[in-house]
Amino acid sequence: MDILITGAAGMVGRKLTDRLCRTGTIGGKTISSMTLFDVVEPAAVSAPWPVEARAGDLCDPAEIDRMVAAKPDVIFHLAAIVSGEAELDFDKGYRTNLNATLMMFEAIRAQSYCPRVVFTSSIGVFGAPYPEIISDEFLSAPLSSYGVQKSCGELLLMDYSRKGFFDGISIRLPTVMIRPGKPNKASTSFFSNILREPLVGKEAVLPVPRDLRHWYSSPRATAGFLTHAAEVDLDAVGPRRALTMPGITATVAELIEALGRVAGQDRVALIREEPDAFITRLVSSFPTRFDPARAIELGFVADQSIDEIIRIHIEDELGGQLG
Amino acid sequence: MDILITGAAGMVGRKLTDRLCRTGTIGGKTISSMTLFDVVEPAAVSAPWPVEARAGDLCDPAEIDRMVAAKPDVIFHLAAIVSGEAELDFDKGYRTNLNATLMMFEAIRAQSYCPRVVFTSSIGVFGAPYPEIISDEFLSAPLSSYGVQKSCGELLLMDYSRKGFFDGISIRLPTVMIRPGKPNKASTSFFSNILREPLVGKEAVLPVPRDLRHWYSSPRATAGFLTHAAEVDLDAVGPRRALTMPGITATVAELIEALGRVAGQDRVALIREEPDAFITRLVSSFPTRFDPARAIELGFVADQSIDEIIRIHIEDELGGQLG
Repeated sequence: MDILITGAAGMVGRKLTDRLCRTGTIGGKTISSMTLFDVVEPAAVSAPWPVEARAGDLCDPAEIDRMVAAKPDVIFHLAAIVSGEAELDFDKGYRTNLNATLMMFEAIRAQSYCPRVVFTSSIGVFGAPYPEIISDEFLSAPLSSYGVQKSCGELLLMDYSRKGFFDGISIRLPTVMIRPGKPNKASTSFFSNILREPLVGKEAVLPVPRDLRHWYSSPRATAGFLTHAAEVDLDAVGPRRALTMPGITATVAELIEALGRVAGQDRVALIREEPDAFITRLVSSFPTRFDPARAIELGFVADQSIDEIIRIHIEDELGGQLG
Repeated sequence: MDILITGAAGMVGRKLTDRLCRTGTIGGKTISSMTLFDVVEPAAVSAPWPVEARAGDLCDPAEIDRMVAAKPDVIFHLAAIVSGEAELDFDKGYRTNLNATLMMFEAIRAQSYCPRVVFTSSIGVFGAPYPEIISDEFLSAPLSSYGVQKSCGELLLMDYSRKGFFDGISIRLPTVMIRPGKPNKASTSFFSNILREPLVGKEAVLPVPRDLRHWYSSPRATAGFLTHAAEVDLDAVGPRRALTMPGITATVAELIEALGRVAGQDRVALIREEPDAFITRLVSSFPTRFDPARAIELGFVADQSIDEIIRIHIEDELGGQLG
């Protein structure tokens, strides 16, 4: 199988790449080559098959045509401008998150073959007011440009799949936590920061009230969603190709309690409150409780608890040791 | 007030134009000029203000810029490739229904003013399976390219409105019946045909089973939705700018019964069954029962009955006399 990953240099892209390099297969078929694409060159990976890591502009039609001309069997389309940046730079968000996605879909259609396309969407496709629990039939009425761009991408993927131009699935990821590395421009970056930084003895800033609730999944579970999305039988999914992934709901206070349980109260003391109205307003508009029945039925598996998410970070990023 | 109507040569565009020429105002403000745009030149209208009727290609950015440069106070964006044609010609549907709509929104944004934009959407944004009655919170998962294009238009309008680039509202029209004139390429055209043709003593073809249910509104009520959409206070609407319009639900059998009641059984005998699998499949995918609570609360008013819809046609199109 030939694999293409856009946004491969991002955190989710790296986790996915690592997972594929470990398993070596998708749906029982052996991976034979891999193209990693991003705006910055993805880091080298060690794999028993040829890997092309390439930096380029996703908004350049020639780049997209070039990637798709190789007719990859599975295309993971992860590349996106994150929510906070898409809200601040309207044109950049639409160019990358909507126009380039549509160009990608058109390039696939032009090749007249039928790859599996896995598109990462977001719970940002939903907008308040919400019911207490969001079902798989709740409307998409986003309150951010990012959410609108992702929602349009889902609709286009649904249509291109129905028409047989490719076999696509959109997976609405929870906020991925704990993100390794440095904070990015996502408005939800602080959720990771307030756990990751104290785990290595550093201070972290909490910009929102402690009773703010959110919906999370670990990088490990998230990479699992992606590979499962590449493998799952989509005939069983039917024409509705956008699936809300299972996750864990918790307040900021509950995150901090879990941090205390797993790593000790001295770590909790490293969190400093510094309210930010812009971030609070944007993140408050995200939904917090779901009943992702379709995804669970199709075998997508969430983390068990926030404690487990913290332990996964310690195992996968800190070599099993607190810093 | 300066008014722009795209798709002005279409049936709904003409009904809207006529209504505005009769009332002379929108929201209590006097109309001062009108631009009517379509792919064919809209028919001349008699109005006490300057009217520019213009034929052009909506997909030409220069045409759009030209229309919007005049900074119309109200833009009725009705122009679209109809459902059946958009399903058969994928590229044409996307070019007109999605790309040109986005170009229109961008042109308005570039003018840095804030007109009212009324976008005609459709119940085709919904896709089966449905609940028994579709609420205002039911997801948009279209089973036609037309539905996807309209749904994306709704999402974009919501975002541009939230950002303050214009003050927009999408109204999801029921199938308009009875359409005057000749059949068009809409897959729903036969609903009108089986009533309109017998009313003037002509045969009509019924391509679907009689128990097929659908959701209708008269041309008169539809023009009323449009003018109300231009007048209604959108602060009360909030960020969710796509509203399902109220209509009447009825089966084909019920349409035919109403025809018999209003015009006599000899008219019913003019309907000839000629099953068409393509039309039946496409129209069966449309939803049939709604609870359009938000629109009703905002003062949008539906027809009373199918009998009334037939009588409106006889009044407005046949001079009050059966042909």
